[in-house]
Amino acid sequence: MPVSLNDMRFLIHDVLRYEQHYRSLGLQDPPNRELIDAIIDEAARFTETELAPLNESGDAQGCRVVDGQVITPDGFKQAYETYIKGGWAGMSGDPAYGGQGLPDSVSIILEELMCSANMAWTMYPGLSRGVINALESHGSDEQKQIFLTKLLTGEWTGTMCLTEAQAGSDVGLAKTKAVPVADGSYAVSGTKIFISAGDHDMAENILHLVLARLPDAPSGTRGISMFVVPKINLDGSRNSVSCGGIEKKMGIHGNATCVLNFDAAKGYLIGEPNEGMRYMFTMMNGARIVVGLQGVCLAEAAYLMAADYAADREQMRSLSGPKAPDRPADPILVHPDVRRMLLVQKAIVEGGRALVYYTAQLADKVVACRGEEQARAEELLDFLTPIVKGVLTELGFESVNHAMQIFGGHGFIRETGVEQYVRDARITMIYEGTTQIQALDLLGRKVLLTQGKGLMAFIGEINDLAEAIKEPLPDISVKLQEAAREWAGLTLPLGNKAKENLDELGAAAVDYLFYSGYVTLAYCWARIAQTAAAGPEGDQYLAGKLATARFYFARILPRTKSHKAALEAGADVLMSISDEALTSP
Amino acid sequence: MPVSLNDMRFLIHDVLRYEQHYRSLGLQDPPNRELIDAIIDEAARFTETELAPLNESGDAQGCRVVDGQVITPDGFKQAYETYIKGGWAGMSGDPAYGGQGLPDSVSIILEELMCSANMAWTMYPGLSRGVINALESHGSDEQKQIFLTKLLTGEWTGTMCLTEAQAGSDVGLAKTKAVPVADGSYAVSGTKIFISAGDHDMAENILHLVLARLPDAPSGTRGISMFVVPKINLDGSRNSVSCGGIEKKMGIHGNATCVLNFDAAKGYLIGEPNEGMRYMFTMMNGARIVVGLQGVCLAEAAYLMAADYAADREQMRSLSGPKAPDRPADPILVHPDVRRMLLVQKAIVEGGRALVYYTAQLADKVVACRGEEQARAEELLDFLTPIVKGVLTELGFESVNHAMQIFGGHGFIRETGVEQYVRDARITMIYEGTTQIQALDLLGRKVLLTQGKGLMAFIGEINDLAEAIKEPLPDISVKLQEAAREWAGLTLPLGNKAKENLDELGAAAVDYLFYSGYVTLAYCWARIAQTAAAGPEGDQYLAGKLATARFYFARILPRTKSHKAALEAGADVLMSISDEALTSP
Repeated sequence: MPVSLNDMRFLIHDVLRYEQHYRSLGLQDPPNRELIDAIIDEAARFTETELAPLNESGDAQGCRVVDGQVITPDGFKQAYETYIKGGWAGMSGDPAYGGQGLPDSVSIILEELMCSANMAWTMYPGLSRGVINALESHGSDEQKQIFLTKLLTGEWTGTMCLTEAQAGSDVGLAKTKAVPVADGSYAVSGTKIFISAGDHDMAENILHLVLARLPDAPSGTRGISMFVVPKINLDGSRNSVSCGGIEKKMGIHGNATCVLNFDAAKGYLIGEPNEGMRYMFTMMNGARIVVGLQGVCLAEAAYLMAADYAADREQMRSLSGPKAPDRPADPILVHPDVRRMLLVQKAIVEGGRALVYYTAQLADKVVACRGEEQARAEELLDFLTPIVKGVLTELGFESVNHAMQIFGGHGFIRETGVEQYVRDARITMIYEGTTQIQALDLLGRKVLLTQGKGLMAFIGEINDLAEAIKEPLPDISVKLQEAAREWAGLTLPLGNKAKENLDELGAAAVDYLFYSGYVTLAYCWARIAQTAAAGPEGDQYLAGKLATARFYFARILPRTKSHKAALEAGADVLMSISDEALTSP
Repeated sequence: MPVSLNDMRFLIHDVLRYEQHYRSLGLQDPPNRELIDAIIDEAARFTETELAPLNESGDAQGCRVVDGQVITPDGFKQAYETYIKGGWAGMSGDPAYGGQGLPDSVSIILEELMCSANMAWTMYPGLSRGVINALESHGSDEQKQIFLTKLLTGEWTGTMCLTEAQAGSDVGLAKTKAVPVADGSYAVSGTKIFISAGDHDMAENILHLVLARLPDAPSGTRGISMFVVPKINLDGSRNSVSCGGIEKKMGIHGNATCVLNFDAAKGYLIGEPNEGMRYMFTMMNGARIVVGLQGVCLAEAAYLMAADYAADREQMRSLSGPKAPDRPADPILVHPDVRRMLLVQKAIVEGGRALVYYTAQLADKVVACRGEEQARAEELLDFLTPIVKGVLTELGFESVNHAMQIFGGHGFIRETGVEQYVRDARITMIYEGTTQIQALDLLGRKVLLTQGKGLMAFIGEINDLAEAIKEPLPDISVKLQEAAREWAGLTLPLGNKAKENLDELGAAAVDYLFYSGYVTLAYCWARIAQTAAAGPEGDQYLAGKLATARFYFARILPRTKSHKAALEAGADVLMSISDEALTSP
């Protein structure tokens, strides 16, 4: 099992107190502990039986194109049938269109279990989520009736078609055109690349969410509209969308990354003309949380693998004397640096999961609450989203590399399985906005543009927590408060520098992102420690949480020091070197 | 061209002053500038024409086994023929056995050019180096006559057979046996795994250097002897060594990583019985420098690729206003964080290369000098070796990942070529002793066991340099001296803690390694800056060096802060968590 269900339950019931959370939201039919546990068990059974066994074989086999149709690896289609039959597709969907209406904080459980078992497979239904969100937020009733219902049963899947060869991070350079047709639909023409789950044989139909320009649309991002373009038309005929090829990639081989050619394909406008970018961002925010979760999931699967190996593999003696004198050597778990690498992984996985689930609770609040409470939840969620996406993917990659390192030479060999996590994890720092894009989003849009509202709200949460744990955990409380104070303190001067010269923003952004990430995870670990400290004394499991929290504050949080120095170094040190010297040494 | 020859010449002639270095060694026939430049040109031509074109195809094709014989990718064998004809194999070999007797600091040039063009290919002749060193240092005259001559023409290649399934980092657990035979040879039996270049079709014969135990040998590392076991016997018959399979790996697909079965294979003892580990370490030290260089080489090839892409790829506008208003977007080179990532790569590549070449000069001194000068060079070289291997491979991996990040989604696609560098680079942190093994070697053997002799010698070099650059580069001089002082200052308490509890050593070692690496690279960048500051004012190339040095001191050297905090956190924070909590969350 690539996830510790035990640990998941501890987070959900004890740290984040789901039952209490749902009651406070005033939900009509709040999910209770029994329901949540049943979902965990069922989802774990499904993912362990159906998805995990296809992870390595899907990587080895990859996808192929036969007669213009993508064929997914053996077993993917059958597993998807089981997924549909299990009713998993509609878990958090609108009940008016066939969904089960469960809060995001419940559906994230399924997401984690699926992704840690098989990320490439999970991306097929995963991409539907974006289309579902877009339709729920901006689709007409008719569109919801026709499209949403099919997505929520899982009979159809979705894609997100943003990128073109000349338009990657810069979506505003998209050239795909949409021309109105007499029947009220649009003829969409252009070529989209890097489309995850862009074509496959797992579902009856695929709904492509396409960003395109209407005739006479303004240039740049203001002239982008959003369309839904089905692979198979509603009358059963084939729409003129074709897969122009699939990419050979470093990882996620089981997911088809397609070039999609739209040749006057029939599409339907979603919402208003030229509002596509705004809609995209709504969708994208949800997707970014999911990508942050992918970082956690891969780290988690690799961590559990490495932990088992470290307990079994015997090499050398403990420096402080043999620990297994009757064996030819001690298990490598005795070596301090092996423990360090496992602790880094544990800290990233469990702290990262806590962060993702916390944001899911915020998303619940955005849906269920109104007024000031809703506004505050939205502020916090907006603020934390680039941190989740940017930092948890970067740390996820670090984490899977530690797992591989524990395996030594065996880690570099395919059959061990851990190197696949390294290859799969590498994409998470790139898609749905690179780490660099997240950093600009955080420092530019979320901090400076809002005069630090989200930051201050979150620092308020941190200070409240630090106050609450003063008694049981004085050291952690002090360190947490200091970190929050320093964070606030370094932000203001950055803002002032950026007012003079916007390159200062770009020069500081990535280090600011990491800095923020480490403080945010410190908050998460302090919450876990708070719960652990409140539990019965002598409990080994809770003692492990406290030890990991102490490790986090002693050996990971201090990474902020380097990032602080770097982000305060200023733009000149990056901008003053000539382009020539930088690119043609 | 995956290397800047210009930059290589600047380092060799201007920074490290090879001509002066050779004169000071009192070599009979010191290589002069013309000879070195000719070697650079010839080697660049060979590697660009013969090796670079096979890098991607070799990765895509990989090796295969046909009838128990490994077949290398198309073109590998022909390129090796050209290598032999060019006389490259014997460059630094003993002239008494057909070598050209050039110093290590010259042969490292060839090594760099080959490896950055095609690391997987370069490992075939690269592995010969270990056998050459072992024979030169410990072989009998007869062995040298028979084996060394063939290795120095390149007609035969070599391997290093250490690892067994149960004996990885812990070589002392090796079980392979060697039984004396009446003719004075030995019958070697056992199974070795992960043998790079273990079998192939490029050379007539392969000499396996095998660690094995004589009957009644003491257990552990004291009972290891070293043998040379040819693939083809000297009488032309096939020896009983067979390739039991090749591993499927994350990277370096072009190099065959073999399981080798020795079934009473005829072998010859090198040197004295039970001295195998000591001999192995002599060899290994040279190999570790080469692996550090591999980190630099891959980083270099990827950096040049990413720099070109950053200058060409147009996405978004500069935050401080359009820089190419007539184009649809600015080249991404205008974005501060793209510049930061390029600067990190430049700092690692050029600083790392300077470090490797500096150690090659030390190796020259060890060979050419006597008495105190030799002892000091040996001390410095021994001390720096784990830093070169440990830190340049880790930073090399960081560097290739930055290159990939600059490519965005395109970087994850195979055909772009940059993801291969990430996959290839990953092994360098594992083989020839993991980063963890390097860290223990540095802090345990090289620092604490010698009472810091090598460290103090190197800090002496640093202080001399800081003094020398006080005038032209006061800021760098001060920062360099401060770093050296702090380094010395944190070492002593570590030593004291380790005396109480050796786990303190293990707990601090990896962070100490990184700390040491960053200070060492600061020394290298200060030397480069010293040369640049002495050059003509207004020179753009030299200004680029100064700007990169300033970047290094402003944004990379401060990483020591985090490592200092971590290594001072102590062992308890790693050891106190229960094994259960660490491995079964």
